[in-house]
Amino acid sequence: MAEELGVAVIGAGRMGGFHVTAWEDLPAARLIALADPDEEAAGARIGRRPIAWDADWRATLERADVDAVAVAAPTELHAQITLAALEAGKHVLVEKPIAASVPDALRMAAAARDAGRKLMVGHVERFNPAVAKVAELLAEGRAGRVFRIEAVRVGPLPARITDAGVALDLATHDLDIMQHVLGREITRVYAEGSRFTHASQEDLLTCLLQFGADGPFGLLDVNWLTPEKRRELTVLGEAGMLRASYLTQDVWFVESATTATGWDELALVRGDAEGSVMRFSLRKVEPLRAEIEAFVRCVLDDTPEPVSAYDGARALAAALAMRESASQRRAVELLAMPGAPV
Amino acid sequence: MAEELGVAVIGAGRMGGFHVTAWEDLPAARLIALADPDEEAAGARIGRRPIAWDADWRATLERADVDAVAVAAPTELHAQITLAALEAGKHVLVEKPIAASVPDALRMAAAARDAGRKLMVGHVERFNPAVAKVAELLAEGRAGRVFRIEAVRVGPLPARITDAGVALDLATHDLDIMQHVLGREITRVYAEGSRFTHASQEDLLTCLLQFGADGPFGLLDVNWLTPEKRRELTVLGEAGMLRASYLTQDVWFVESATTATGWDELALVRGDAEGSVMRFSLRKVEPLRAEIEAFVRCVLDDTPEPVSAYDGARALAAALAMRESASQRRAVELLAMPGAPV
Amino acid sequence: MAEELGVAVIGAGRMGGFHVTAWEDLPAARLIALADPDEEAAGARIGRRPIAWDADWRATLERADVDAVAVAAPTELHAQITLAALEAGKHVLVEKPIAASVPDALRMAAAARDAGRKLMVGHVERFNPAVAKVAELLAEGRAGRVFRIEAVRVGPLPARITDAGVALDLATHDLDIMQHVLGREITRVYAEGSRFTHASQEDLLTCLLQFGADGPFGLLDVNWLTPEKRRELTVLGEAGMLRASYLTQDVWFVESATTATGWDELALVRGDAEGSVMRFSLRKVEPLRAEIEAFVRCVLDDTPEPVSAYDGARALAAALAMRESASQRRAVELLAMPGAPV
Amino acid sequence: MAEELGVAVIGAGRMGGFHVTAWEDLPAARLIALADPDEEAAGARIGRRPIAWDADWRATLERADVDAVAVAAPTELHAQITLAALEAGKHVLVEKPIAASVPDALRMAAAARDAGRKLMVGHVERFNPAVAKVAELLAEGRAGRVFRIEAVRVGPLPARITDAGVALDLATHDLDIMQHVLGREITRVYAEGSRFTHASQEDLLTCLLQFGADGPFGLLDVNWLTPEKRRELTVLGEAGMLRASYLTQDVWFVESATTATGWDELALVRGDAEGSVMRFSLRKVEPLRAEIEAFVRCVLDDTPEPVSAYDGARALAAALAMRESASQRRAVELLAMPGAPV
Repeated sequence: MAEELGVAVIGAGRMGGFHVTAWEDLPAARLIALADPDEEAAGARIGRRPIAWDADWRATLERADVDAVAVAAPTELHAQITLAALEAGKHVLVEKPIAASVPDALRMAAAARDAGRKLMVGHVERFNPAVAKVAELLAEGRAGRVFRIEAVRVGPLPARITDAGVALDLATHDLDIMQHVLGREITRVYAEGSRFTHASQEDLLTCLLQFGADGPFGLLDVNWLTPEKRRELTVLGEAGMLRASYLTQDVWFVESATTATGWDELALVRGDAEGSVMRFSLRKVEPLRAEIEAFVRCVLDDTPEPVSAYDGARALAAALAMRESASQRRAVELLAMPGAPV
Repeated sequence: MAEELGVAVIGAGRMGGFHVTAWEDLPAARLIALADPDEEAAGARIGRRPIAWDADWRATLERADVDAVAVAAPTELHAQITLAALEAGKHVLVEKPIAASVPDALRMAAAARDAGRKLMVGHVERFNPAVAKVAELLAEGRAGRVFRIEAVRVGPLPARITDAGVALDLATHDLDIMQHVLGREITRVYAEGSRFTHASQEDLLTCLLQFGADGPFGLLDVNWLTPEKRRELTVLGEAGMLRASYLTQDVWFVESATTATGWDELALVRGDAEGSVMRFSLRKVEPLRAEIEAFVRCVLDDTPEPVSAYDGARALAAALAMRESASQRRAVELLAMPGAPV
Repeated sequence: MAEELGVAVIGAGRMGGFHVTAWEDLPAARLIALADPDEEAAGARIGRRPIAWDADWRATLERADVDAVAVAAPTELHAQITLAALEAGKHVLVEKPIAASVPDALRMAAAARDAGRKLMVGHVERFNPAVAKVAELLAEGRAGRVFRIEAVRVGPLPARITDAGVALDLATHDLDIMQHVLGREITRVYAEGSRFTHASQEDLLTCLLQFGADGPFGLLDVNWLTPEKRRELTVLGEAGMLRASYLTQDVWFVESATTATGWDELALVRGDAEGSVMRFSLRKVEPLRAEIEAFVRCVLDDTPEPVSAYDGARALAAALAMRESASQRRAVELLAMPGAPV
Repeated sequence: MAEELGVAVIGAGRMGGFHVTAWEDLPAARLIALADPDEEAAGARIGRRPIAWDADWRATLERADVDAVAVAAPTELHAQITLAALEAGKHVLVEKPIAASVPDALRMAAAARDAGRKLMVGHVERFNPAVAKVAELLAEGRAGRVFRIEAVRVGPLPARITDAGVALDLATHDLDIMQHVLGREITRVYAEGSRFTHASQEDLLTCLLQFGADGPFGLLDVNWLTPEKRRELTVLGEAGMLRASYLTQDVWFVESATTATGWDELALVRGDAEGSVMRFSLRKVEPLRAEIEAFVRCVLDDTPEPVSAYDGARALAAALAMRESASQRRAVELLAMPGAPV
């Protein structure tokens, strides 16, 4: 393989467009082709850059100078394209959710192992510096014993056509991140919510989660109905509360109360006691850019993928369980997945 | 009865102290006595004002110039004191929760009816102008079809000794308000949480609620572990989101998105579309003051109590169900209570 | 003098009302009388407490059991009442501004010295824990070299009748605090603003200030026109920015930027670099309560007043200079005042 | 001229880089060349796009297919390049500030008129939808009589090398916008501030401004020392306060107080009265993109430039007066400029 990785992007939707921009800016790779049946959409993404257009992704897989593909096609095609790409000897970065079903995801994992090629799942929030900081602070014990982890991913429905509801499109992000920062698997989910205004998919799910056998519990709210965009991760522990905004990449620590308030009228509004508050200074980076850099590195250095197919399968399984719980109105238990959460 | 209502406060804890101050400022009433076994506590509340101290609340009930009592004693004593007061011919304003058990609450309701005396429950948030505004806006249909109602009542544990966990002490507030503003009863609850750092009581409960047979669902988070005080009510509907702060009494309406953003980079942080946002201009008042004024009015005018014993029983039943659900790890169905929510 | 200080409050306006409440709660003092020509106003402040009402403050000064008076009368009467009280052998806590003119203020200072009585000025923000924290952090060098100090004291006009415009009523607070926390006197002011909607007084002044010969400069904005209440003190220095809210008593330190942002699109909204942010944990207290406690202490212990008449004169002189600068549209230089700022 | 405007960008610094991206995305134009002596900088901006690199901007002006140039070179070169470009028959979009001196700016204006070519100044905030909304609301009289206009443009110093201090680099933005939205010229400035930490340029200026003979006054704060990025425009008027964030493009209206607060303790923190608050729903766009679209339109339709050279000269004159006032420590009067503010 050349020092410069030859790359193709499959899918020219919104996510595919972000990939084109990100890959073009990466010195370690060369973007060779963009595959999409829609010529106009592909053309708009390509602009005047020297990138080939393939109407059929199968043609892309035949290109000898393509070492790796980034799969940004509709979720239903993830398994088919990924399996074909691995068979063609390509490394694959597949967008989340890894696939439409857990068996498909496990088949993809096996195929990558058999082909000796990398298969990484594009859980882009893993490359958000705010998430890394939360993980680091938790590992340090900053929050003390953890009681609850909470994620909120809400905001108006993007105009793009969606091939998935909030479980697959939104919740998979946080289900992966929560398992990742806690280092524990989700064992049980109970969700409420359904399709309210979306044409075909559920658009609001609120979910209580259990981590491990006796771990902390979780709260996850994902929807396309809240009129203000918020994407936050909050960990409540004995020593205080960590809060990260996925959007601004700010990470705050609110220490548990240490100082009682000596003024009752102010306490009515501000609380009976307080601790200190800290926002950390972080180097902020574009998560997608960091994700594709990490993918290129694991390919060039032949190191394990930072987000494995099993991670992707684990997030998918929990998302599907949320959907099932909400529609059947009962708690759903989750089976253990191969490979511990990373 | 004289034009000026003779009143006694039973209990000189923090809540009793608030009552003393509020009653002393009310022209329509005269505060005659404060009952509490702890002379020092009572003395501190009374200061130099001409208010009698009774070590035993039974003595207070014998005072002929006392027309009504405000019961701010520990919850376990609510039923006993209230029943004795009604028997002594006094009107009763009992702090929330109405009692420690639903049968006690129903007994109190029956006793008031038999005695022909008023029995009002001190669900103070009913007298919060922000709650009244939310109820009015919902009635007008401002939020459109309602999908979810959410309440958050969190903050550091007050230093006062608590005779109840978060279910009885905190959740009863919002369980009452949610039923009140929606005009529907809670039919089912599923809660997670338990005792984490409190000496004896559960200190965090997060709960999913069902209203009516097919009504909106609810989310309630109450705890003494979050290091920042927040007390908010949020209603998410098709036309937008109503949000009230119980503390500052601000009420906001965030309209559902009407205008798509034309700048992708800004949309990453701020969302793909937005509507307008409105904060209403409200006359803010101290809820406890408004509550005792409403109590005096219903006594003097012989009109129905604005918060009935059945309302109190309904909030109590839901709070006990939350506790049961969290400890048994299953959804709990609620039976219908006499009297529709007001 | 008895161990318990006998006190009278002169003036039953809003400020006098706050004094009555605060003095009644103070164990080390006994509130004996409230003087005001308006019997109804005085009665409303007194309630059922055993406090005498004097229609004429001269009668109050004749009371033998009154050791000290708190002067909360209109500003024009401050000098007359204070001089008479000192002559009657009383200690005096006079509300800010100390007087209506600098010569009056200096006369009051001299009279107190001659009488051997305490004369303290009620610059209540000196007793705000947030101000003390800012002063402490500045002394420690937390902000590094100071470039600018800024104060904002704005919000809707209170309904009470005002006998002064924003220069005397609002600006005196911050002019005192700025000199206090920097330990330097104001030497020059340039102000814009005037009377916009008030019936008789200037209601908006924005002012640039010079501290010392070569000190930092200042920015002060005081008005009754901004529809949102804000009262903040901000110090911008080489190492970062200190910000205190007088209202919530929060103190923040925003460190100067240390970490460059690696994401240009986010930098558009959030800046090219950032440092850490810290909110300190403070014991919050009611400033007026702390002020009268400090006054009682300096009387009982015979220690210097924590806010001297010269401090009061210094703040007054700067406030009058603001008014002069705005009306004459030129910078105004200030003469040195006896006694360094404390 | 072809339907597609042939364009070159002169200068490959940060601003030049933004221009390259923006022009490449514009269907109505074709970006032909980027001129900069630094080949590496130019190469980084161009990427793999088919854009020529000219080491010398004089060569760019000789390109027959270049109809217009965007001048993003250092300010000292603006006049020289613009005059040469106009002489070569090119239309010119010159970045702000228009030039390093007012006489240069006036010479450029005259040259454009003589050459019959467009000369527009890149005051990009004119194309910020939030500014347009403020102008529209002011024209409608929403704020009532205007008392004060205030702009804040502060934040950490960008890493790029700067050829100008805050007066030319930052203040010119707001000086133009303030004159634009009020429709009145600045007649007088008084500024404090200087160079604090920057190697060679003033890095903080705080300025009081007078608009027209008797107009509202203004407050402008520009610096590279405040550790948090803020860019806001606030107009305080009799009916309320308009506030726009240049960054998020939010526009708020805070109505003057209409409703008195009935709770004194809350009023301590929140004010004695309040009005309603409104955030408008706006279509947000990237200002630079809107600016170059407006430039292309005025060239293709032969309509007046939306930001004229006189507008640029007027903002420059006020910025230079700020610098002069701060260094000489006196108010500076401004002469009238040809052409009323647009």
